[in-house]
Amino acid sequence: MSRRLEKCMTLSDTKLSPPNQLANLLAGDLEEVNKLIQSYMESDYAPRIPEVTTHLVSAGGKRLRPILTLAAARMCGYQGSFHIHLAASVELIHTATLLHDDVVDESTRRRGKPTANLLWDNQSSVLVGDYLFSRAFQLMVKTKNLHILDILANASATIAEGEILQLTASKDIATTEDIYFKVIRGKTAALFAAAMEVGAVVADQDEKITEALREYGDALGITFQIVDDLLDYLGTEAIGKNIGDDFREQKLTLPVIKAISVATQSEQIFWKKCIGKGEQTDSDLKNALTIMSKHNSLELTRQQALSWSKKAKLALTQVPDSNLKKMLLDLADYVIERIN
Amino acid sequence: MSRRLEKCMTLSDTKLSPPNQLANLLAGDLEEVNKLIQSYMESDYAPRIPEVTTHLVSAGGKRLRPILTLAAARMCGYQGSFHIHLAASVELIHTATLLHDDVVDESTRRRGKPTANLLWDNQSSVLVGDYLFSRAFQLMVKTKNLHILDILANASATIAEGEILQLTASKDIATTEDIYFKVIRGKTAALFAAAMEVGAVVADQDEKITEALREYGDALGITFQIVDDLLDYLGTEAIGKNIGDDFREQKLTLPVIKAISVATQSEQIFWKKCIGKGEQTDSDLKNALTIMSKHNSLELTRQQALSWSKKAKLALTQVPDSNLKKMLLDLADYVIERIN
Repeated sequence: MSRRLEKCMTLSDTKLSPPNQLANLLAGDLEEVNKLIQSYMESDYAPRIPEVTTHLVSAGGKRLRPILTLAAARMCGYQGSFHIHLAASVELIHTATLLHDDVVDESTRRRGKPTANLLWDNQSSVLVGDYLFSRAFQLMVKTKNLHILDILANASATIAEGEILQLTASKDIATTEDIYFKVIRGKTAALFAAAMEVGAVVADQDEKITEALREYGDALGITFQIVDDLLDYLGTEAIGKNIGDDFREQKLTLPVIKAISVATQSEQIFWKKCIGKGEQTDSDLKNALTIMSKHNSLELTRQQALSWSKKAKLALTQVPDSNLKKMLLDLADYVIERIN
Repeated sequence: MSRRLEKCMTLSDTKLSPPNQLANLLAGDLEEVNKLIQSYMESDYAPRIPEVTTHLVSAGGKRLRPILTLAAARMCGYQGSFHIHLAASVELIHTATLLHDDVVDESTRRRGKPTANLLWDNQSSVLVGDYLFSRAFQLMVKTKNLHILDILANASATIAEGEILQLTASKDIATTEDIYFKVIRGKTAALFAAAMEVGAVVADQDEKITEALREYGDALGITFQIVDDLLDYLGTEAIGKNIGDDFREQKLTLPVIKAISVATQSEQIFWKKCIGKGEQTDSDLKNALTIMSKHNSLELTRQQALSWSKKAKLALTQVPDSNLKKMLLDLADYVIERIN
């Protein structure tokens, strides 16, 4: 890279989004992580594996979870190299769940590209997912840290449990906020929390700091998912998603759950028809938005997202100030930027 | 149990099959394993999990893999309790792979009962499989033995790799014996080998004994799978399978691979049509058997199974004599009994 270009990038650093700021600051580590992920996505003799994984990698991805692990470890002053293994391991778990999710959701597109289950078949997605999960497991064993293995094993079980709960709660208009939070804690927050926590543990932090970082990850993940579910009805620059996708797919997300919880009798019938039975006409999304507006459901959802973002930042109070800490605080603001 | 009944059972012990002899001798341990499996198949809040797992447990199963772990540990004089965790963990991994296999194979029946993917859906089978795999992982972490974690992580990756290779080799008449052995080592022998090896490691055996037990498991698993694939063409008392199932499903198993490797030009065309393209008439299975008989393919397959059974027994030469060792030797004979 030329000196001028480097200077340019440095000058423009202040304008970068927090995930990009973190990626920039952790660029060296992240390159190691990418190399390790690449090598663990290979297979000596099953060519279908690199085919599918190359497709996944080429589809890109924010690498948000490994960035959290690297940031947590570095923020805690870690000087070893196992944070690379852990960050790669976390991303491999995430990729494995994406492959299985696409089978479960019968998705055809992810990150603007056709999904692996469409390009190959469900079988390849299931088995390559299993392979990546096993590879993640091999990688984390290399750290020889039993506390870390325990954290990631528990996170994996919580993820699967959350996904199953989401499957059975789908189309069920009796789904409560309590169930919703169990689902999103599983499908999103558990890995965010574990990604932060293992960064602290590998850096040998005390329980207070470790718990603080875990809490940050948990609250960030919950914020992230609520915002995602809210944007599905707001439609503001939600990349790769159309407004009302969740409505059409009969998903019980927080805005709808809130509206149902205070529904009149006729509204109950409406929700049962549209979400429960999937009988929708062209005007039903508009009708749903009108009902939600009447009950303030989107605004109440928004406030809940803001409150979780605050919780994320509050968790870091315990942690000594640093450049990385500031970026993590900014990240918690950034997640709610699109709804603020 | 009455004294008379106990005596009866003791007297009839000598007539039990080797797996049942082992199960009898290890009955106390096995009960603990079953309890642990049961508790790890539960979930605090996702009711679909116990629904699916109760169905799986009620469908029964030989518990052959956990029996290997228990036998290995006890044979090595282990007096602790972690062999219970490991045996349960091995069975949970096996159950997880069964759930995913049924999705991959689009199976409708297993052990004479409708499969979970048929009773519920593919989604539940994928996610409950993931859950059980994570639970297996949690259980093995409890042993706090990094060598064991390494063995089981490697076995998991080999299993997935073998399954993927099987998927891509399916219907491919260019499949070689080398590929076949990679597939069955993955899908069957890897977990047999790991089940034995972790039993030795938990009992703190030296490398020589550990390697001997691993080799026994590997060879037993390979024998087991070759016999299974051979019986598909012999049809002798093959429980739950019809003669020629693999042929109809266009599977490249050892008998067919051997026949194809020496096929005349017209036979090549036949195999391409039946196995490659799946164009089969009612008489094609009979034609296939005639061709295999001409080339001695079934007999050559049988000899290979016998040779692997011998290898399994030979591996135990290093291990001091004991009642359990005798039963494991008998088990290697028992596996080939139906083709002997």
